[in-house]
Amino acid sequence: MDKWKRSARLVDMTRILMGAPHKLIPLTTFSEKYSSAKSSISEDLAIIEEVLSREGYGTLETLTGAAGGVRYIPKINIEHAKKVVEQLCDHLSNPERILAGGFLYMSDLLGDVDLLDQIGHIWATVFAKEKIDAIMTVETKGIPLAYAVAYYLRVPVIIVRYDYRVTEGSVVTVNTVSGSSHKIKQLSLSKRSLQEGSRVLIIDDFMKAGGTIQGMIELLGEFNAEVVGVGVMVDSPATEKLVDSYVSLVKVTEINSKQRRVCVELGNFFDVEGETNEEN
Amino acid sequence: MDKWKRSARLVDMTRILMGAPHKLIPLTTFSEKYSSAKSSISEDLAIIEEVLSREGYGTLETLTGAAGGVRYIPKINIEHAKKVVEQLCDHLSNPERILAGGFLYMSDLLGDVDLLDQIGHIWATVFAKEKIDAIMTVETKGIPLAYAVAYYLRVPVIIVRYDYRVTEGSVVTVNTVSGSSHKIKQLSLSKRSLQEGSRVLIIDDFMKAGGTIQGMIELLGEFNAEVVGVGVMVDSPATEKLVDSYVSLVKVTEINSKQRRVCVELGNFFDVEGETNEEN
Repeated sequence: MDKWKRSARLVDMTRILMGAPHKLIPLTTFSEKYSSAKSSISEDLAIIEEVLSREGYGTLETLTGAAGGVRYIPKINIEHAKKVVEQLCDHLSNPERILAGGFLYMSDLLGDVDLLDQIGHIWATVFAKEKIDAIMTVETKGIPLAYAVAYYLRVPVIIVRYDYRVTEGSVVTVNTVSGSSHKIKQLSLSKRSLQEGSRVLIIDDFMKAGGTIQGMIELLGEFNAEVVGVGVMVDSPATEKLVDSYVSLVKVTEINSKQRRVCVELGNFFDVEGETNEEN
Repeated sequence: MDKWKRSARLVDMTRILMGAPHKLIPLTTFSEKYSSAKSSISEDLAIIEEVLSREGYGTLETLTGAAGGVRYIPKINIEHAKKVVEQLCDHLSNPERILAGGFLYMSDLLGDVDLLDQIGHIWATVFAKEKIDAIMTVETKGIPLAYAVAYYLRVPVIIVRYDYRVTEGSVVTVNTVSGSSHKIKQLSLSKRSLQEGSRVLIIDDFMKAGGTIQGMIELLGEFNAEVVGVGVMVDSPATEKLVDSYVSLVKVTEINSKQRRVCVELGNFFDVEGETNEEN
């Protein structure tokens, strides 16, 4: 193999690292591919690291030793995250989104891959330090969000179904009461989809009282799995929350069908991040 | 702003281009950000282009003139695509995937973001030259695939629902007969989700007779939308296909529950690509 020039190496390493977040890539992979000394590779990585930090896009984590290597840890800076979520708030506060029954139309936003990509980047930043084995969501609207995060954390997604499906094999089913409508729903997860003792991040699009998320937590209990965290895109007012600990990006404080008004503010993620920021 | 060194520029431009496939980025965006002459930016782009081509990862398309700029067109080379799909075939031919009723368990594969990322890259290569306004799929298992493609083509995803949902607003509904089970199913799409006359790519995980896909095509007819193409991950044997034209990655030729045997081969995508390749 020809020796690669530094300029070409930088492009290729950036491409490889960005394309495989959280994956440890041995330095030998790079030095062999480019027929370059490890010292040159380390210099290249320092340049990439500097640009990523400057742009608020993430960091490179270098592990030394025999099992060592480098991995790209995606991170988004808080100002950028705030801009993304403020745009989301603007979208959500459009009264044309109000549907019969006081629901909000969000399918267009959940179909927007640019927005999802950025939301995935934000969640991946929130949970970057956790050891996560899988991301769990419930069909249907949580799915795009779960995958958006999973791309940045590079962990598998498992999907909870409302109905038993023949394509899932044996399933574990729990009953859950929707806190807001008091209806009983069944949540099922394929037995094959999750190993006992896994550490799981729950992601969903919308939370009112949190009955569905409580059901998912119960389901995880059946697998002796641990809940690493809960992230919801939109938090909505409820007299009593069934879930204590969750991170929300947006909080809808009022949906008034009569007066055609939707009130939206930043979610609790920005409370926490605000405090963290002051410490820095 | 300080002038950026070429090495830092290359890293940052690669990051930006890879992060926004198919998006036209004006050269002035780069030259202003880095306080660099457009001629330097063009030289940088030539380096990036050369690496992408060499690695079989895509191309840069440069448009000149006032509305000009550069965009990253993701492409995967046929050898790499074949390797990815051969691995998929290996996974699918594992007899432990056979479920009651002769179904195949695939949820783990559809939860694997590395695999999805590569499949998305392959589909994006197949349909790179088409003008596409949206990608359509049906809940639930088609969704991860549709988004995987959508990330590479940077177009919105619209999701067809089996049941009418209050969160979708007004919907258009068609009845469709599953070609294999002869059951009648309803497919609904939110009226707000698709503009009249859109050009739509249909993506799904599994096709037997193609009743669901035929239903989606019919639904698109109700929106006066045009079907740009149909891509299915797994094509399965059926006495009669209801859909003539589709691209499949994998073809399951036999699922034998008694003898615990699954026979899998490459899908028709590789027929077509084979011919194309010979021409080159």
